[in-house]
Amino acid sequence: MAADFVTYDEIQVGDKASFSKTISESDVYLFAGITGDFNELHVNQPAAEKSLFKSRVVHGCLADSLVSTVLGMKYPGKGTIFLEKSVSYLKPVYPGDTVTVELTVAEKRERGRVLFDVSYYNQDGTEVIKGTALVLAPRKPEE
Amino acid sequence: MAADFVTYDEIQVGDKASFSKTISESDVYLFAGITGDFNELHVNQPAAEKSLFKSRVVHGCLADSLVSTVLGMKYPGKGTIFLEKSVSYLKPVYPGDTVTVELTVAEKRERGRVLFDVSYYNQDGTEVIKGTALVLAPRKPEE
Repeated sequence: MAADFVTYDEIQVGDKASFSKTISESDVYLFAGITGDFNELHVNQPAAEKSLFKSRVVHGCLADSLVSTVLGMKYPGKGTIFLEKSVSYLKPVYPGDTVTVELTVAEKRERGRVLFDVSYYNQDGTEVIKGTALVLAPRKPEE
Repeated sequence: MAADFVTYDEIQVGDKASFSKTISESDVYLFAGITGDFNELHVNQPAAEKSLFKSRVVHGCLADSLVSTVLGMKYPGKGTIFLEKSVSYLKPVYPGDTVTVELTVAEKRERGRVLFDVSYYNQDGTEVIKGTALVLAPRKPEE
């Protein structure tokens, strides 16, 4: 069985990994309940229609969380420790949009640290969020 | 009725706002379902006990999302547009921990932008996450 992670030594600058998900209305409402962010831009359609965005939008913090799914589940995977995240919210994400988060290894740093460039696209290929993620990568192969 | 936001002009450097929430096990499981991050550190107690953290931990991206609740609901509140977020995950947050996110206005920038310093503490006063948030503040009083 393949290991469910890659180690620091195996990681190479330029490696890519991604995850895609359609963000549903129910995701947005559950996220509002979890966080307490019931801003009308997220949960009040008539009010949101009068806003800059013309409709309800997904919480930026919900969309940007998809980076964690790649890091924890796919690459580097099991054993990864998330250290730092930065994001710029470029364009609105609407409920029903399918967001792809794509990570590219930008730098291998000392003491097991790996920096990723992170871009989030919607189903039209529009970049909606961009940022970086710094992790402590797994060090030893699974025994 | 008081306005449910403060405008750029009313905001002063040094202003503070905060929000506290006990992050439950159910929050963590719902968040795993929303994002797809089922890393064993979050949802597998025996495996997590063998980790550095000795128990399941809250997703960093869940805990850091509480900043959005302050920005969207309390200060500056309605009409705020979240532009940029950066966070460093300093210490683990465990299910059952009560996290307080405290925002302090660090800078008023041109074109309605406001930079906040953001610190997250657990119930013991330990800083668990720190970072910044940049927003576009509401500009006009409600009519």
